[in-house]
Amino acid sequence: MLDFAREARTGLDEAVFCAGKTVAHIVAILQQVESRSGRILLTRLHPDQFTALPESQQKQIDYEPVSQTAYFSQPHPPLDTRRIAVVAAGTSDASVAREAARTLTYYGESPAEITDVGVAGLWRLLERIEEIRTMKVVIAVAGMDAALPTVIGGLVAAPVIGVPTSVGYGASENGQTALKAMLASCSPGLTVTNIDNGYGAACAALRILRLAAA
Amino acid sequence: MLDFAREARTGLDEAVFCAGKTVAHIVAILQQVESRSGRILLTRLHPDQFTALPESQQKQIDYEPVSQTAYFSQPHPPLDTRRIAVVAAGTSDASVAREAARTLTYYGESPAEITDVGVAGLWRLLERIEEIRTMKVVIAVAGMDAALPTVIGGLVAAPVIGVPTSVGYGASENGQTALKAMLASCSPGLTVTNIDNGYGAACAALRILRLAAA
Amino acid sequence: MLDFAREARTGLDEAVFCAGKTVAHIVAILQQVESRSGRILLTRLHPDQFTALPESQQKQIDYEPVSQTAYFSQPHPPLDTRRIAVVAAGTSDASVAREAARTLTYYGESPAEITDVGVAGLWRLLERIEEIRTMKVVIAVAGMDAALPTVIGGLVAAPVIGVPTSVGYGASENGQTALKAMLASCSPGLTVTNIDNGYGAACAALRILRLAAA
Amino acid sequence: MLDFAREARTGLDEAVFCAGKTVAHIVAILQQVESRSGRILLTRLHPDQFTALPESQQKQIDYEPVSQTAYFSQPHPPLDTRRIAVVAAGTSDASVAREAARTLTYYGESPAEITDVGVAGLWRLLERIEEIRTMKVVIAVAGMDAALPTVIGGLVAAPVIGVPTSVGYGASENGQTALKAMLASCSPGLTVTNIDNGYGAACAALRILRLAAA
Amino acid sequence: MLDFAREARTGLDEAVFCAGKTVAHIVAILQQVESRSGRILLTRLHPDQFTALPESQQKQIDYEPVSQTAYFSQPHPPLDTRRIAVVAAGTSDASVAREAARTLTYYGESPAEITDVGVAGLWRLLERIEEIRTMKVVIAVAGMDAALPTVIGGLVAAPVIGVPTSVGYGASENGQTALKAMLASCSPGLTVTNIDNGYGAACAALRILRLAAA
Amino acid sequence: MLDFAREARTGLDEAVFCAGKTVAHIVAILQQVESRSGRILLTRLHPDQFTALPESQQKQIDYEPVSQTAYFSQPHPPLDTRRIAVVAAGTSDASVAREAARTLTYYGESPAEITDVGVAGLWRLLERIEEIRTMKVVIAVAGMDAALPTVIGGLVAAPVIGVPTSVGYGASENGQTALKAMLASCSPGLTVTNIDNGYGAACAALRILRLAAA
Amino acid sequence: MLDFAREARTGLDEAVFCAGKTVAHIVAILQQVESRSGRILLTRLHPDQFTALPESQQKQIDYEPVSQTAYFSQPHPPLDTRRIAVVAAGTSDASVAREAARTLTYYGESPAEITDVGVAGLWRLLERIEEIRTMKVVIAVAGMDAALPTVIGGLVAAPVIGVPTSVGYGASENGQTALKAMLASCSPGLTVTNIDNGYGAACAALRILRLAAA
Amino acid sequence: MLDFAREARTGLDEAVFCAGKTVAHIVAILQQVESRSGRILLTRLHPDQFTALPESQQKQIDYEPVSQTAYFSQPHPPLDTRRIAVVAAGTSDASVAREAARTLTYYGESPAEITDVGVAGLWRLLERIEEIRTMKVVIAVAGMDAALPTVIGGLVAAPVIGVPTSVGYGASENGQTALKAMLASCSPGLTVTNIDNGYGAACAALRILRLAAA
Repeated sequence: MLDFAREARTGLDEAVFCAGKTVAHIVAILQQVESRSGRILLTRLHPDQFTALPESQQKQIDYEPVSQTAYFSQPHPPLDTRRIAVVAAGTSDASVAREAARTLTYYGESPAEITDVGVAGLWRLLERIEEIRTMKVVIAVAGMDAALPTVIGGLVAAPVIGVPTSVGYGASENGQTALKAMLASCSPGLTVTNIDNGYGAACAALRILRLAAA
Repeated sequence: MLDFAREARTGLDEAVFCAGKTVAHIVAILQQVESRSGRILLTRLHPDQFTALPESQQKQIDYEPVSQTAYFSQPHPPLDTRRIAVVAAGTSDASVAREAARTLTYYGESPAEITDVGVAGLWRLLERIEEIRTMKVVIAVAGMDAALPTVIGGLVAAPVIGVPTSVGYGASENGQTALKAMLASCSPGLTVTNIDNGYGAACAALRILRLAAA
Repeated sequence: MLDFAREARTGLDEAVFCAGKTVAHIVAILQQVESRSGRILLTRLHPDQFTALPESQQKQIDYEPVSQTAYFSQPHPPLDTRRIAVVAAGTSDASVAREAARTLTYYGESPAEITDVGVAGLWRLLERIEEIRTMKVVIAVAGMDAALPTVIGGLVAAPVIGVPTSVGYGASENGQTALKAMLASCSPGLTVTNIDNGYGAACAALRILRLAAA
Repeated sequence: MLDFAREARTGLDEAVFCAGKTVAHIVAILQQVESRSGRILLTRLHPDQFTALPESQQKQIDYEPVSQTAYFSQPHPPLDTRRIAVVAAGTSDASVAREAARTLTYYGESPAEITDVGVAGLWRLLERIEEIRTMKVVIAVAGMDAALPTVIGGLVAAPVIGVPTSVGYGASENGQTALKAMLASCSPGLTVTNIDNGYGAACAALRILRLAAA
Repeated sequence: MLDFAREARTGLDEAVFCAGKTVAHIVAILQQVESRSGRILLTRLHPDQFTALPESQQKQIDYEPVSQTAYFSQPHPPLDTRRIAVVAAGTSDASVAREAARTLTYYGESPAEITDVGVAGLWRLLERIEEIRTMKVVIAVAGMDAALPTVIGGLVAAPVIGVPTSVGYGASENGQTALKAMLASCSPGLTVTNIDNGYGAACAALRILRLAAA
Repeated sequence: MLDFAREARTGLDEAVFCAGKTVAHIVAILQQVESRSGRILLTRLHPDQFTALPESQQKQIDYEPVSQTAYFSQPHPPLDTRRIAVVAAGTSDASVAREAARTLTYYGESPAEITDVGVAGLWRLLERIEEIRTMKVVIAVAGMDAALPTVIGGLVAAPVIGVPTSVGYGASENGQTALKAMLASCSPGLTVTNIDNGYGAACAALRILRLAAA
Repeated sequence: MLDFAREARTGLDEAVFCAGKTVAHIVAILQQVESRSGRILLTRLHPDQFTALPESQQKQIDYEPVSQTAYFSQPHPPLDTRRIAVVAAGTSDASVAREAARTLTYYGESPAEITDVGVAGLWRLLERIEEIRTMKVVIAVAGMDAALPTVIGGLVAAPVIGVPTSVGYGASENGQTALKAMLASCSPGLTVTNIDNGYGAACAALRILRLAAA
Repeated sequence: MLDFAREARTGLDEAVFCAGKTVAHIVAILQQVESRSGRILLTRLHPDQFTALPESQQKQIDYEPVSQTAYFSQPHPPLDTRRIAVVAAGTSDASVAREAARTLTYYGESPAEITDVGVAGLWRLLERIEEIRTMKVVIAVAGMDAALPTVIGGLVAAPVIGVPTSVGYGASENGQTALKAMLASCSPGLTVTNIDNGYGAACAALRILRLAAA
């Protein structure tokens, strides 16, 4: 039972989190969407799930394998502005950053994707900071010690949303350390999402951007 | 060494987190602020710390004991608008909610404070939801099972910032359960601060509100 | 060595938890049951385990793959009443809810299964709450933030049993957050089972229902 | 804002959890109750809080220091039946067991309190088991290894509610081990409350007993 | 480099823990033993590892698949006495109990293996307790709530060694709960080994038995 | 209700764990013992508890403040042998080691107490190892990295019982690291008690020594 | 029993960790040192412990209250060089940084103490980085998100030793998050000490500096 | 975007951590290196990743499967000295020790690799200690109880870097216990890296050795 009324209340369509769902279940959801001539965003859609969908559904899907996201039918029309940055510390954080960027793009945004700016090589971030300062919202994605959002939060006035990733091993504890380090940050006004939740960060940014646009 | 340049970069003054600081240290900071004819917000200022300050400093302070916050010299002039709600699940969450509200007031906001709307008595929230829907940003404060931000996030389109509190015992684990429950929430776009961090939530809201005002 | 005397003491037959058992072990148990012309409930019986059983045993089994439960020989005769609800927050919680429902059905109950009523879409629960209020016992199944049992516990007078599920990622910690959030709930009189333990919740409900019937 | 409508919905009065509340706050609540000629149960009322109440309020209170519970005004009239056992493993668990018993008594029940029956001295439990078997509901309170509810659950057919306590040191982890051991129990149908939550167990029992009485 | 001097110091041969070792590594160890005409015990030898050994080595091995233990060359000659019990709560604990029993047998002991005596079906243990009381040492193996060693420790005077197992799910936390519950036990004189460490419990028992024999 | 039958079953008197007990409770227990002309061991008896006892009871008590243990009335008559070592890594572990030694002395043993032999100064242990090798049982007490029992276990053939202590800070986690390090030890046959449980280690040693004596 | 031979082996005198030691114990240690005309460093010496020492001992002590360190008798003669930096993120980390600096000074070093250079105000660190680059070893002290050592490690070639501090609340988990974030750092060659262990970091630096001097 | 400037700042080339990277990504990095006629170290390069590289790249690689490290193009020219020891407790720690040794060799060092010297067989370490004492830096690799670095730290004056490994089961907690035990060590001046981080320990040693050489 999809929640088609959600957009009316929250301004955000329902999306389908595909991890743990059977292909049959996903097929049925897409049929329900199709019957209403709607659109829907799918996240965590594994390539094996995608290729197991009926060809007729695959044809209507724009699938992106790094983020494992899919647009069914047409996404929202693009807006004519670049006003949000998705910044990632390392290349290993790319899938999470891309999930955020793809979610934003589904809603018509044109996010700037800036990667490989981890603070162990500080000048790489400093080279890009003026560009980041022009954005209305910043999503900062980082694993391991997760210092990136703290450093950015001290350099810009815009809202900064931190997304910890599960990248790393040992003391990284599958992203728990990155999560806690962001929460413990002394950079005031930094807020945080669940580990690897690029989708959630994008939704938070969309709530803010609409407010800015209102 | 206070960071007086912070406001220029981030739009937020430096604040003083007093827990763990000696009275002598706090006195010195206030002298530094006074010598610049500045203002400053103090958080986690224990009543014993407050009353140990020299009388001349106490006179310039507006102290609020529930939140343990203080304004030194004049806070920012009040803005002529009510556009943010600080919503709390229970009366035990009041000190954290008040810290958020006092921080907002320091910056000129006039937050609506709505308490005792925990979801175990659902209609209490439903009675206030239309009022909450008129706000530009919502800060939702809750301990224990921390379901309040999830329910609000599903009912409003504005940005929602969750603040877990350390209220509770046993499985509450000093707020860790509330924190994780908010992070695990299925309400899209909810972001979260550290446990009991009303100040941080207010700063995040201020970053958003300035964007909205810009 | 099956514990055939358990029913006499506790009113509940012994059941077989198949996860981690070899097929040979399960075959032997079923032979023991068959030699006594008995019945038995099997839980966590993986499809691969089921299809590896001898055909003669498979024929006597009613297998349900979503819950991975099986009835060997005839279950208890159905009672002529609907008096218990199994309520689930999301479709991902279905396997656990179904395990509870199948256990109840094995003992002759006809549970009402109500799904997709997570509190992030609150009105979905409110649409069903009058139906839920007619029940003698409520089993509430939820993962992630696990707010559902708290909200239900504040709306009904019947005993409510919470079952946390391992659905989710990151801060969900394989169901530990849902478990602790239920335990920390401010909804008085909510009791809780182990993560994913639909079978245990059904047994608790059966103990209560027999008391009600006595 | 007390929730006087709670009894209508759930059959349970609101109670006041006093830990962390100021005396002024408690005084105000009691005045609100008095103005409605009502009654209320107070839990976790520290002796220092009790003696700081105005004498006029103290006079209307039946205070019990082991459990730190208080009845303000008259509790519910006693029912003419003994139908619930509160069983505790050790004397150190007494305060929690007494909280459960006092809550039940407030609602008119006459619970049987059975203590010092930990399973390291097994025959002490076996001497009392026939008495326990005559009860409609059993609340089993235990800390440390918390084996008591498991053993009882295998010996009686009634609903068994386990209450872990924070008794112990080291690997007891303030009751977390007792909590998890009860949840992991192989005794089917055992449900569990938060650590030290005798009040919650009593509320769960009351929901069941009313069902039995209906 | 095997530690052939260990027996001289501790009375226990070095054993080979095969999990995580390559087959080539195990082959080399066995060649080293063979060249000295020695014997050795192998634990956690996976069936795939065993069948990958050269046939000439397989022929000299007594392999037992439930415990995944192997004797290379002749074990120690059997002693003419039964003086130790290996008691297990459930059939799922069998592999660990068997590892203990096989280690004891390697050293010439003839342990009594007693299974399916978990305390949720108490009389099953009570039926065997007189037999257990005749033993010089008791190894008690249990997962989940792990109450078995506590109950036995209160019923016998012999040394009792608890072995927690990783059986269970959710709150069992892969045996951590069983481990902590045993450590927190109020049964005086119970000592504990690592999770699933049947080998270690057997070694501890051997140290004790040799002392008794001395 | 003291368990005077425990000695008959387990060969160990009941002892009184005084932490968390009221003085009134302890007084009552001692009266019960006195009325039977018995003896009893008290552990974790805080000096404040001791001095609050009635003078008549204090007179019959042999109190030792480092271990906070007390003998009420006469302990068991001393045996004419030194056969057990209590070895401690650092002076900070002394209170736990002394609790073990005092418990052993209560039962008539004359333990050798060997301290300050932590492995960061290895030769200090090596100077004493021949003495330790003459003992029938070794109790090894250590906090922090807790390497002492591992090293001893590799050097002696006797049973070794490890007692982790809560000494340390940060990563010591109140003794949890010492506990886990002992459990993870590669020294075969090492068994472990709860953190700071010198009493329990002594009881385990007594069970072994009686076996040796039998 | 002080370990006076330690210096011969490791080049480091034994120091006295005073937390948890009685005053009598500390007095005895100092007498032992005095009788040998030696010197010793005391750490975690609480002001109450210091003032309880006999006046004759106090007179021979150089006590520093922020770090709670003391030099008994004369420290090592000062070396004529500045070659190590102790860098701290915030003023709250001062006591730990000072413990490191005082330990170094005891051994004759003249460390540069650089504070208030947390990365949320990045340019403060950048202003000092050239000075830091001139040092042979860097000790980086930080709590909360603990990003400082990572950033420094990417900017200098010298050995960097990270010291996490217990500063912070909630998700800081008493320094555990800072500790894990440093361990998970992507800054290659960063090594870490226990939480708040300024003394240990100084000892590690001394081992390195002597090597450099050799 | 490789960070070719890193060597200038830190004296260490950038290395490629291959776990979690796609083969395409690794191919592109090597092409970038080749186009600059550079060299690079690859760590955690799985055999499947290695064999999936184009043959032309494989030819330029020196791959070592135990450590899963690879040198692309020529490593740094060998230095004419043996001045660092990599010491490992058990054979299961070999892959981590080898990663450290291979990283050192890539930079021209000739480390002494000393294995199977765990402290449960103490004399094995003592036989090698004089050799270890001749080294300028010691890397000590150990899992489980991880006592090796503590013992070595008490026997040598050189800097000691501890590397915990994920070897073990149950209470070993995938190396967390080894990590914490090293951090809690009472051996002064021991510093620690992340679990299994042989590469990081080698980098730390290189920073020190260059200082010694300077």
